[in-house]
Amino acid sequence: MTPEPPATETTFARMTELPRSMVTRLVGRMSKRPGSAPGTLQHTGRRKMEKVRLRLIDYDNESIQERELDRIEDAFAYAAEPPVTWVNVDGLHDVSVAQAVAERFGVHPLAMEDVLSPTQRPKVEDYDDHFLVIVKMLSFDGETDSISAEQLSLVVSPNYVFSFQERPGDVFEPVRERLRQGRPRIRGRGPDYLAYALIDAVVDNYFKVLEQVGDRIEELESAAMEDPEIEVMHRIHHLKGEVLVLRRAVWPLRETLGQMYRGEIPHISEETQLFLRDVYDHCVQVIDTAETLREVLSGAMDLYMSGVSNRMNEVMKVLTIIATIFIPLSFFAGLYGMNFEYMPELGVRWAYPMLLVAMATLAGGMVWYFRRRGWM
Amino acid sequence: MTPEPPATETTFARMTELPRSMVTRLVGRMSKRPGSAPGTLQHTGRRKMEKVRLRLIDYDNESIQERELDRIEDAFAYAAEPPVTWVNVDGLHDVSVAQAVAERFGVHPLAMEDVLSPTQRPKVEDYDDHFLVIVKMLSFDGETDSISAEQLSLVVSPNYVFSFQERPGDVFEPVRERLRQGRPRIRGRGPDYLAYALIDAVVDNYFKVLEQVGDRIEELESAAMEDPEIEVMHRIHHLKGEVLVLRRAVWPLRETLGQMYRGEIPHISEETQLFLRDVYDHCVQVIDTAETLREVLSGAMDLYMSGVSNRMNEVMKVLTIIATIFIPLSFFAGLYGMNFEYMPELGVRWAYPMLLVAMATLAGGMVWYFRRRGWM
Amino acid sequence: MTPEPPATETTFARMTELPRSMVTRLVGRMSKRPGSAPGTLQHTGRRKMEKVRLRLIDYDNESIQERELDRIEDAFAYAAEPPVTWVNVDGLHDVSVAQAVAERFGVHPLAMEDVLSPTQRPKVEDYDDHFLVIVKMLSFDGETDSISAEQLSLVVSPNYVFSFQERPGDVFEPVRERLRQGRPRIRGRGPDYLAYALIDAVVDNYFKVLEQVGDRIEELESAAMEDPEIEVMHRIHHLKGEVLVLRRAVWPLRETLGQMYRGEIPHISEETQLFLRDVYDHCVQVIDTAETLREVLSGAMDLYMSGVSNRMNEVMKVLTIIATIFIPLSFFAGLYGMNFEYMPELGVRWAYPMLLVAMATLAGGMVWYFRRRGWM
Amino acid sequence: MTPEPPATETTFARMTELPRSMVTRLVGRMSKRPGSAPGTLQHTGRRKMEKVRLRLIDYDNESIQERELDRIEDAFAYAAEPPVTWVNVDGLHDVSVAQAVAERFGVHPLAMEDVLSPTQRPKVEDYDDHFLVIVKMLSFDGETDSISAEQLSLVVSPNYVFSFQERPGDVFEPVRERLRQGRPRIRGRGPDYLAYALIDAVVDNYFKVLEQVGDRIEELESAAMEDPEIEVMHRIHHLKGEVLVLRRAVWPLRETLGQMYRGEIPHISEETQLFLRDVYDHCVQVIDTAETLREVLSGAMDLYMSGVSNRMNEVMKVLTIIATIFIPLSFFAGLYGMNFEYMPELGVRWAYPMLLVAMATLAGGMVWYFRRRGWM
Amino acid sequence: MTPEPPATETTFARMTELPRSMVTRLVGRMSKRPGSAPGTLQHTGRRKMEKVRLRLIDYDNESIQERELDRIEDAFAYAAEPPVTWVNVDGLHDVSVAQAVAERFGVHPLAMEDVLSPTQRPKVEDYDDHFLVIVKMLSFDGETDSISAEQLSLVVSPNYVFSFQERPGDVFEPVRERLRQGRPRIRGRGPDYLAYALIDAVVDNYFKVLEQVGDRIEELESAAMEDPEIEVMHRIHHLKGEVLVLRRAVWPLRETLGQMYRGEIPHISEETQLFLRDVYDHCVQVIDTAETLREVLSGAMDLYMSGVSNRMNEVMKVLTIIATIFIPLSFFAGLYGMNFEYMPELGVRWAYPMLLVAMATLAGGMVWYFRRRGWM
Repeated sequence: MTPEPPATETTFARMTELPRSMVTRLVGRMSKRPGSAPGTLQHTGRRKMEKVRLRLIDYDNESIQERELDRIEDAFAYAAEPPVTWVNVDGLHDVSVAQAVAERFGVHPLAMEDVLSPTQRPKVEDYDDHFLVIVKMLSFDGETDSISAEQLSLVVSPNYVFSFQERPGDVFEPVRERLRQGRPRIRGRGPDYLAYALIDAVVDNYFKVLEQVGDRIEELESAAMEDPEIEVMHRIHHLKGEVLVLRRAVWPLRETLGQMYRGEIPHISEETQLFLRDVYDHCVQVIDTAETLREVLSGAMDLYMSGVSNRMNEVMKVLTIIATIFIPLSFFAGLYGMNFEYMPELGVRWAYPMLLVAMATLAGGMVWYFRRRGWM
Repeated sequence: MTPEPPATETTFARMTELPRSMVTRLVGRMSKRPGSAPGTLQHTGRRKMEKVRLRLIDYDNESIQERELDRIEDAFAYAAEPPVTWVNVDGLHDVSVAQAVAERFGVHPLAMEDVLSPTQRPKVEDYDDHFLVIVKMLSFDGETDSISAEQLSLVVSPNYVFSFQERPGDVFEPVRERLRQGRPRIRGRGPDYLAYALIDAVVDNYFKVLEQVGDRIEELESAAMEDPEIEVMHRIHHLKGEVLVLRRAVWPLRETLGQMYRGEIPHISEETQLFLRDVYDHCVQVIDTAETLREVLSGAMDLYMSGVSNRMNEVMKVLTIIATIFIPLSFFAGLYGMNFEYMPELGVRWAYPMLLVAMATLAGGMVWYFRRRGWM
Repeated sequence: MTPEPPATETTFARMTELPRSMVTRLVGRMSKRPGSAPGTLQHTGRRKMEKVRLRLIDYDNESIQERELDRIEDAFAYAAEPPVTWVNVDGLHDVSVAQAVAERFGVHPLAMEDVLSPTQRPKVEDYDDHFLVIVKMLSFDGETDSISAEQLSLVVSPNYVFSFQERPGDVFEPVRERLRQGRPRIRGRGPDYLAYALIDAVVDNYFKVLEQVGDRIEELESAAMEDPEIEVMHRIHHLKGEVLVLRRAVWPLRETLGQMYRGEIPHISEETQLFLRDVYDHCVQVIDTAETLREVLSGAMDLYMSGVSNRMNEVMKVLTIIATIFIPLSFFAGLYGMNFEYMPELGVRWAYPMLLVAMATLAGGMVWYFRRRGWM
Repeated sequence: MTPEPPATETTFARMTELPRSMVTRLVGRMSKRPGSAPGTLQHTGRRKMEKVRLRLIDYDNESIQERELDRIEDAFAYAAEPPVTWVNVDGLHDVSVAQAVAERFGVHPLAMEDVLSPTQRPKVEDYDDHFLVIVKMLSFDGETDSISAEQLSLVVSPNYVFSFQERPGDVFEPVRERLRQGRPRIRGRGPDYLAYALIDAVVDNYFKVLEQVGDRIEELESAAMEDPEIEVMHRIHHLKGEVLVLRRAVWPLRETLGQMYRGEIPHISEETQLFLRDVYDHCVQVIDTAETLREVLSGAMDLYMSGVSNRMNEVMKVLTIIATIFIPLSFFAGLYGMNFEYMPELGVRWAYPMLLVAMATLAGGMVWYFRRRGWM
Repeated sequence: MTPEPPATETTFARMTELPRSMVTRLVGRMSKRPGSAPGTLQHTGRRKMEKVRLRLIDYDNESIQERELDRIEDAFAYAAEPPVTWVNVDGLHDVSVAQAVAERFGVHPLAMEDVLSPTQRPKVEDYDDHFLVIVKMLSFDGETDSISAEQLSLVVSPNYVFSFQERPGDVFEPVRERLRQGRPRIRGRGPDYLAYALIDAVVDNYFKVLEQVGDRIEELESAAMEDPEIEVMHRIHHLKGEVLVLRRAVWPLRETLGQMYRGEIPHISEETQLFLRDVYDHCVQVIDTAETLREVLSGAMDLYMSGVSNRMNEVMKVLTIIATIFIPLSFFAGLYGMNFEYMPELGVRWAYPMLLVAMATLAGGMVWYFRRRGWM
């Protein structure tokens, strides 16, 4: 199962920016360029940065070295040797970076293809001397109530971790900080533990996103109860879509982490498996919560619907009360507005006041009836 | 797999009180302090008590000793020796207690982290010479119709049981009473049986909570049938959320107890497994009932909805009857109120009474029609 | 795994009658008396009879003996010896009966506790020299449209069957009749076949209950179609709850019978397993039907809802037709009822008849329009 | 596991015709006569024919013989010998036929009981030297839109196939035709292949039923879109019940065929298993389609509902437009119909035409407003 | 398990065009001609082309040959020898083509029957020296918003791939292009890799279909929010049916690919399995997305429903406001239009203006009340 290197067949084309419809966001995959072979290295994402940013951290228990690189080739000397090397690649549009890594370390072309197409489902794949993990970093934009997903790909061997992502900006500052502070737990362990630490940071961030979504849902619940405008419905609907985005990122991660902590990936030590079991538990919690949020959103929709029908009811009641009181009264007024020559009542002295009293009594009776029915 | 002690890297920080949104209550986990390593011992819960309360019960078949401790270290001599020692820790904010236990008995840091973050899912984890069980104590607040969950963590070895919880107040008085009375079944058995007895007390309490929730649901059903106000809908919606809280506590417990009674935890004797099978059955019953309550709540919502539309129908019927009878009558009254010079009917002697009779006939016909349609 | 006899620790307390809320009926379990140990023998049901009724049938291929007993101890001599002994205990409030059986035949305390608390889920549990089966007898009360469940517990060993239930009245008369008639199939076989025959009678009775519920549902469907009153909705809702009760009795029984026919219980002969497979099939049919009834009930609710909205539509149409015809006419009548000095039409000779014709034309046009729209 | 022959204990009673409620049709099982033992041979179906019809086909590669029998015993000589014998029994009410077969070929009493009660779920059961397959023949009655199920029971051994059904009329004419034409594939193979061919014919017929149901659904969809009358709703509801009947026939068949093609039944040759795998695939297709039809029916109900509410909306709009235009106009007409002595407008020369113009303007403004809101 | 050749028994009949109802499209299978044996080769599809088109590509690492064939027999010399031969058959109505292939290469009759009936579920079946894969090519027709499925059947052995489809027009141009360009990855590998490449092209095309459906859904969502006309509902309903068509094509493909990449088909090399795992992942993504689209469609229906009820509410509010303001005013106007002789107000000098002021005040109060209730 030694994969053939992509060789001449591979075209390292730059992709232009593509528009992103909702379904693309949900599918997370653009069709490949027609005519390209599977395993062809090309970036199928839409974002383009000025320059790929390369950051290297090389450490063991005694020392740590941190630098920005100009060329990915500068990292190879570090990565080939025992102290743990972490190379963080921000920007995927320059496929020559990925190609160089793939060629130097014999990374499987299908693995690199996955790295470059930023709409993969989370997964772990084991190759002979390295493994690939794909997870999704999520962030919640409070302006648009949208969750955006950023793919993080980790290529891990006994000597290095390459982490790839499309845009700069990540959730790893705490990990870097712990590396710098020389904490023995992370500095004394291998790349598998580093990979765990990065995934742990990603999953930790999910909770933050969940809290933000949850806060928004609470707002919408209040709005649905107090002021059931159609916009509330639209926002609930929109948020449902966002929770779908979240689910799609998290569900496959559960299985991925399960494979990792159960020892199906040979490069992960037993000790790290114990920690991965912990992230797995957190991931299950995230899934639980996402499912709960969906139910709460459905509940909010029910609230909105019943709020709307409640308001409708009130409108109907007011209409009914007014119409039911005044329509009969108007009839009697109309009756004595008729111009028949022989209407004996018209000449009666107290007819008018008596009619007024009768009308007041009728209206009062109506009101009493409505009160008894609980309509007023 | 000998876990490294948290050592210098661990910061035993006090946490300030954090606000608790609905989602937090449902997620049951706050994000860790940025920059902290996994396995760092810190209390991530929100409650703070004046002082951690430590209660020790040390017993075997012959004798029992019960005391309050000032320092956790006082318990260590008891816990290290054969007679069964139960140390109940109320309050988690002083992490030095947990740290001392962890260091003295080699409890795994990840286990202690779980103990201190009070939003874990129920689970059991086996370590070399002890195991950790996490369950949720539930209580129902009749004022606010809310279920609150309190995490109970048990660290169990062949000599001791450490039980940790955030707040004082538990459901264990019956267990203590049985210990004091010297019942042979509990006094003659090991810490695994004690752990079983504590979990059994917790699960028994679930039934009480279920009954309280069920009573509330019955009230709401009656209200939905008799007086479908919007508040009924809001309360049903609220209670649905509470049942979600309950489910989240109970579903994972089932699996946990399954692992325990099937002998996956070496420290649990076969005899105790038989009893755990019994709690497992009760737990399944609780889940069954929780699911049933959810269905009943959905049914109550249907009841409310149909009650609302029924009321709406009645309103509409009254409006229709009144309007349909009087609008035509008013028209005829208006007709003879016109001021045309040549309206021969106006001069007819019996026109007015005849019109009155015609109107009465028309109204009577309408009433008859409505009765036949079943509207009156 | 030799269970300790309940000994002095066990309190054989009488329980007072407890009220039974819906949730209790659905949960089927009252919380134990605080302070009682697990495995304590106490009756947690609510019913109380004057006297426990004990009926013994002792038979083999040649002979059969049937008698009523005063004391449970009178049965022990029979039960200890080879001919098959069936002791039927009606009434659980006198726990001394259960205690005596437990002590004499070494029945496990947890098993006896299950027998005495009449809200267990159906299950089978194997002990060393006997096994326990718990099933539910159901009956449908046509007055209140309610299904009531009565727990039947069978303790079966190679020599005897003890059957326990709370109230007198069972579905076993056919079995007794076959025993009396000396049918070789039942008389020539062991207690395991007798247990099968009893369970078969119970499951057969489920079909009767299903038919009764089904008949009621058909009535409700007709009512929902023809006369969608709110009471129909309430009865559908009520029946849904009853089907939940039925499900809770039947679902766990399936698994129970599965364990029994697959040979997981050593005391059941291969031949009897074949018959149990048959009951298992019937049980699956019952579950199927119960699920179908639930769907049919949901369908009936949809029928009701659409019937209601259909009726509402008709009401609205009548209102609209009447109002739409007469409101414009009334306007024109009002127009010529105005008192302006200069209204030339008023003096025109044929104005009044012409107006009448115009009004009739307008009304006729409206009617034509409504007919075309299909509203009349 | 040698089952005891039913012997004297068995009563071969004729059953009278029983009424068939919906639930019976869905449950497909009447409770047995009280007091009858399991395994008792009695016909529990409802249909009764004048005479049981017996048709025998005896064939091998060289010859074929086809005849009608008067007595089932005439078939036994054929069935006991190698050339394949197919005996088709139409009519189950004369249980002596079944009894004779059971006694002659040692068919298990439970198997014969299943054959005679025509409401079994599809299943296959293996006995020592024969096996029993139960499947459902379905037919769709276009008059009543009802699916009726007819039970087909096959008793298959290496020498014979006995096929039992309640009523004459089957889907096997093509199979008989192929037998007569001497096709080597069917004539050269054993009874297991014949059983396969019969089941294949039954499953093939399901597709016809599905197409008929599907056509009906399409009609209902059109009706729901174009003319959402309450009858459409009732018919959709009815058809939902029919699809439930279909599902209950097909779901268990899948498992049955799975057991058969996976080689769990020893009498089925590997070659025939390959063909059974093919029927299995068709059965899965039927299930798929039945599930799809259910979804389409739910969709049709949504269509109906939205059609109804759409029509309601139109009614409301017309009412609103008419009322909203004329009610204010009538007010102004009424205003100038008042009889105050001092109303200066009344004497103004152009007041009346000006008022008419104002009224027309007001009405025009209303119409413009309604058009802008999209209500007209 | 050596299948008998179809021989004389097989009739190679042409089928006439059959109408295709919705259910046929969803079921994807017409009943066979009555009387035909299973495994009979006949084309059960509905399309008919002038002439079957046969295209052959024969290649290895060094050379490639591409030609159109007149007779299928011309391909046999190529297909029997080592260089990989791909024969693409467009058009299934001339069954002699399929018969020739089946006879020459010993393809199993059941396999050929599947190839010819274009409504099979996707599946893979292994025969002794070849295997059969059935997948569905989908295309979306933007005019009618319909997804049409075209069956692609691949018969693969170590020397050849025969691909069958009903109509010309496929998604394989990129594959042919890569073959022509001499890319080593595809030219250097066997027919199993070619089969993979074809399936990959098919699955890639699914994403295009998903995007088109997704775009349509977005349009419908906007329409449901902005202009909830009944046509929007009808189109949503229609699209739901189309997504069902898509699901039926994709769900079984997942299992099919799973069998292929897990090595259950002996003719697939380990290297190709790795690539198939990749298609499998894409297929899972397609399923995920299809499920998501269904949820989004349900959401769109909710949007439509709430849009409709929102519009209804607005209509009701306008009606209520107008009626509630003017009906009381009209009553007062009518009151002073009465013709009683003794109505003292009528003679009062300022009565008329005062009444006008009172009316304006009443109307203003109403408006103020409606504003406070949020109705205006």
